[in-house]
Amino acid sequence: MGRRGAAVALLVLVAAAATLPEAASASPAEGLQPLSKIAIHKATVELQPSAYVQATPLLLGEQGEDTEWVTVKYGRTNPSVDDWIAVFSPADFNSGVCPNPSRYPGEPLLCTAPIKYQYANYSANYIYWGKGTIRFQLINQRQDFSFALFTGGLANPKLISVSEPISFNNPKAPVFPRLAQGKSHDEMTVTWTSGYDISEAYPFVEWGMVVAGAKPTRTAAGTLTFNRGSMCGEPARTIGWRDPGFIHTAFMRDLWPNKEYYYKIGHELQDGSVVWGKPYSFRAPPFPGQNSLQRIIVFGDMGKAERDGSNEFANYQPGSLNTTDRLVEDLGNYDIVFHIGDLPYANGYISQWDQFTAQVADITAKKPYMIASGNHERDWPNTGGFFDVKDSGGECGVPAETYYYYPAENRANFWYKVDYGMFRFCIADSEHDWREGTAQYKFIEHCLSTVDRKHQPWLIFAAHRVLGYSSNSWYAMEGSFEEPEGRESLQKLWQKYRVDIAFFGHVHNYERTCPLYQSQCVTKERSHYSGTMNGTIFVVAGGGGSHLSDYTTAIPTWSIFRDRDFGFVKLTAFNHSSLMFEYKKSSNGKVYDSFTIDRDYRDVLSCVHDSCFPTTLAT
Amino acid sequence: MGRRGAAVALLVLVAAAATLPEAASASPAEGLQPLSKIAIHKATVELQPSAYVQATPLLLGEQGEDTEWVTVKYGRTNPSVDDWIAVFSPADFNSGVCPNPSRYPGEPLLCTAPIKYQYANYSANYIYWGKGTIRFQLINQRQDFSFALFTGGLANPKLISVSEPISFNNPKAPVFPRLAQGKSHDEMTVTWTSGYDISEAYPFVEWGMVVAGAKPTRTAAGTLTFNRGSMCGEPARTIGWRDPGFIHTAFMRDLWPNKEYYYKIGHELQDGSVVWGKPYSFRAPPFPGQNSLQRIIVFGDMGKAERDGSNEFANYQPGSLNTTDRLVEDLGNYDIVFHIGDLPYANGYISQWDQFTAQVADITAKKPYMIASGNHERDWPNTGGFFDVKDSGGECGVPAETYYYYPAENRANFWYKVDYGMFRFCIADSEHDWREGTAQYKFIEHCLSTVDRKHQPWLIFAAHRVLGYSSNSWYAMEGSFEEPEGRESLQKLWQKYRVDIAFFGHVHNYERTCPLYQSQCVTKERSHYSGTMNGTIFVVAGGGGSHLSDYTTAIPTWSIFRDRDFGFVKLTAFNHSSLMFEYKKSSNGKVYDSFTIDRDYRDVLSCVHDSCFPTTLAT
Repeated sequence: MGRRGAAVALLVLVAAAATLPEAASASPAEGLQPLSKIAIHKATVELQPSAYVQATPLLLGEQGEDTEWVTVKYGRTNPSVDDWIAVFSPADFNSGVCPNPSRYPGEPLLCTAPIKYQYANYSANYIYWGKGTIRFQLINQRQDFSFALFTGGLANPKLISVSEPISFNNPKAPVFPRLAQGKSHDEMTVTWTSGYDISEAYPFVEWGMVVAGAKPTRTAAGTLTFNRGSMCGEPARTIGWRDPGFIHTAFMRDLWPNKEYYYKIGHELQDGSVVWGKPYSFRAPPFPGQNSLQRIIVFGDMGKAERDGSNEFANYQPGSLNTTDRLVEDLGNYDIVFHIGDLPYANGYISQWDQFTAQVADITAKKPYMIASGNHERDWPNTGGFFDVKDSGGECGVPAETYYYYPAENRANFWYKVDYGMFRFCIADSEHDWREGTAQYKFIEHCLSTVDRKHQPWLIFAAHRVLGYSSNSWYAMEGSFEEPEGRESLQKLWQKYRVDIAFFGHVHNYERTCPLYQSQCVTKERSHYSGTMNGTIFVVAGGGGSHLSDYTTAIPTWSIFRDRDFGFVKLTAFNHSSLMFEYKKSSNGKVYDSFTIDRDYRDVLSCVHDSCFPTTLAT
Repeated sequence: MGRRGAAVALLVLVAAAATLPEAASASPAEGLQPLSKIAIHKATVELQPSAYVQATPLLLGEQGEDTEWVTVKYGRTNPSVDDWIAVFSPADFNSGVCPNPSRYPGEPLLCTAPIKYQYANYSANYIYWGKGTIRFQLINQRQDFSFALFTGGLANPKLISVSEPISFNNPKAPVFPRLAQGKSHDEMTVTWTSGYDISEAYPFVEWGMVVAGAKPTRTAAGTLTFNRGSMCGEPARTIGWRDPGFIHTAFMRDLWPNKEYYYKIGHELQDGSVVWGKPYSFRAPPFPGQNSLQRIIVFGDMGKAERDGSNEFANYQPGSLNTTDRLVEDLGNYDIVFHIGDLPYANGYISQWDQFTAQVADITAKKPYMIASGNHERDWPNTGGFFDVKDSGGECGVPAETYYYYPAENRANFWYKVDYGMFRFCIADSEHDWREGTAQYKFIEHCLSTVDRKHQPWLIFAAHRVLGYSSNSWYAMEGSFEEPEGRESLQKLWQKYRVDIAFFGHVHNYERTCPLYQSQCVTKERSHYSGTMNGTIFVVAGGGGSHLSDYTTAIPTWSIFRDRDFGFVKLTAFNHSSLMFEYKKSSNGKVYDSFTIDRDYRDVLSCVHDSCFPTTLAT
């Protein structure tokens, strides 16, 4: 979500900010990409001999690390509270890289936003002593770094000093592998980022079963990238642009259900030597219908945040690191993750995708991480999406679909199915038209109708925007408690095909409904559901990390549990008849809401309201 | 079929029996599952010191056999003609396993039907001497066995003695592999049963081409099962329930057309050792359109029977073993089998599925065995089927779709296509709605319309119930000679896409029509068809083994050949222009009816009644 949670006056401001970053810089708006507050193209340069910036160490990643802490010392005469430090990468951020230097009046023009920033007085007593020290966390992003001291605040930046560049030992090294289930249960994909095009070093994954004497296999990876021209608007095409390097995906196939596999990404240089990534392992998905313990994580709208405190993270996605940390701690207790849209909220600042892949790397390297498309990934006017708004900052879905793999037929459309043991997930794309007659509607019906509920009883629908029910205050003001044309188009499919649970994000809180159809609860039971299945449970799980959303004061009858906090959902299928649902807070990982479903095959087959298959009187 | 063949008075009795097994026990009804005659839940226990039951040997399968003969000696004072011997598995059949012990008044309650039974006086002179000997054939069914002597007949059973348990050496061993063609011609699947869950021993198949020096491949199998709660009603959920163990399916892919492959199923234990099944081989299917000799077997309604004479087999599926034995003898002379519905007629007595897989194992281990869904597999009220009747005894399709693989998109719906060389088979599911506008109709049209008749000239439609024409007496009484809404919905598709032959079962006899459309023969020719193809030949091949069905006295003009006997059909494609059809009796394997089709590609393309493609006047 993002913009909708704010008041109307603010909305105007933020909408303007999407194209004119400077307009909003005066306000610490919730839901505003911090980098967009920097009016970098208005920056002037006035280097001051007395000012200095020094960063150490000069060489990062000497032991192959992909993440390092850097100490930055800086100082000047006449320190000011609006002095700030920008981290640039590449280190050379002068106007030579401007795509259209004549566009703005005045010189010099800086055309590249920094990858992060921090106020100089974040270091205690800076304004008294005129010197300070800040530690920044850097990740290997294929380019060197420099640190710049600006005065004049974010709105009227004046560059007064720049550090020497520092660099990772091998800036091109392959980093941050991301697993995702492929088109069938026996295929795992791994996607990663590097600085190597295929002509310089050949990308592959070496992998095999974790068993004594097993011979490793090498499987080639495909290589994708995108360029400035792939972006639909600004800031992604302008000051938000940063070269994404190369994104590689390899397909590990014919996996044996439940077996443990190791893998290691690598690039073979032309001399035959190999630049390796770190080794990891994963467990192959269960056979569709297989009866074994299966545990799923679902949340949306996590965003990213900086552990070094830069980018004023607390105002943007304050719960993001909590959610990440809980999931890293709990790695042994779940099997697959669904992040249903709004990933980094990069909003056109492409560097932030690297930051996000780094933040979740400890999860994605070990568990399949399945994404959906949110408004902050996709929406841009006149680009074929259903919402004609600027929420993606000009990205129009390109970084999301390139940085992450998901088994969609056409990855420009984020709809796909995942069979995971006793579960089937039908992931829809709320940023593209889903109404009857569309290709997406056809997909959704096909996904829901082709699952054998005998063997895969747990049928889950998920999308980013709330196509079901939410008592979020914005929706309430619209009088709909949902996105326009959301459930109206889809509820007959959910009912006909007996969807157990429909998940949504976009609204940044937690809410769970009764099993319902056409706004009516079909049972008074609140926590232990059993017997004939005649309605779907709707869950908003949008509290992954971004600034929280408010509810209506009045609570609709269908709303069973609401929590305005950061959290995520865990589903546990014990067998074909028994499912447990838990909502956990990100702050402590403890369960704050739960319910169970106990149900047999016949309970799914039974005739219910608006969903009876025809029968004949004949015998 | 089953119930329809019987008189009206009997129908009432049998219908009641589906829920109240004891009701029908007084009558040796045709088409009644023998185990349903046993009122096991009414059994009382009164062990008599003078009575005894002894079984030998105590240990079965010492050389790895999956089938063994056991000798049972028994005796008592005051022998009675209504004394009988029950075979229980597991051996402990006491009331502890009852899912709902309070359901029936009176104690003790036995909640599990035996897997088979025989009257004590099957042994000559039992009622004179008070002792007897019976030989039972047992198969490895994952559990031990015990033998119980009852008096009081099947309707009022009183347990008077029980044997010591006996067991197979490895009750969990993988048994009874079943081949089936996969989603394409170059994929063969093998499905088998074991007592090993994936966590105890990992299932796989080792396979390769039969050629000197070929390296074997190991491919993982998926594991499925089902539980009591998966059943839709009784007896399947109650006294008919028996744990099915684990059912494994592995996919052998990228096969070379016509090449011979060997395979061996196995389970790897945690110490690395392997429990192997027996080795077998099969011939990979031909490439679609390939010109080579191709021979197909088609029949329905075979059922199962006991070679030891138990379960009064002669009253239930008397032709079943004859058909099985003919097909085993003739293994070298056909390539693939279609069993179009009504497999074991287990009718909710789940143990009988093991017996059926064992009976046909000599066929299924070597030839792809493709099944369709019959009323006795699927029908149960209010479970989404088209017929709201109880013919499946509460199974609602679950055992059928789990014990056997078939390349359906959603295996809860038994519709799928098979390309076998010059043939295309479109297998429909007569137990689900097939009328215009349904998903199945869409499938049927897609299957019929997407075959290239130049390369695959022989287009075959098959379903269980008679959607075409049959002069069965029941259908005649309804004045329709078919299932309601059968051909009315489909005949325009058969005509438009020029289906050569449509096969049905359900009616337990053989009948062959002229090529016809809308009940009119389109030719007077009776055995050598050639030239423009303007009608479909309809064949009832339901004499696979179950009790036989009667015809009308008057013979409809379209009925060319009828035979009220057990038998099956063989199709032989010599090339793209020449097909031979043979009907053989199961008793002797000899041909009793036949015809040929000689036809060229243009004969399929020609304009015929109700099926001309538009042309333009332009040149």
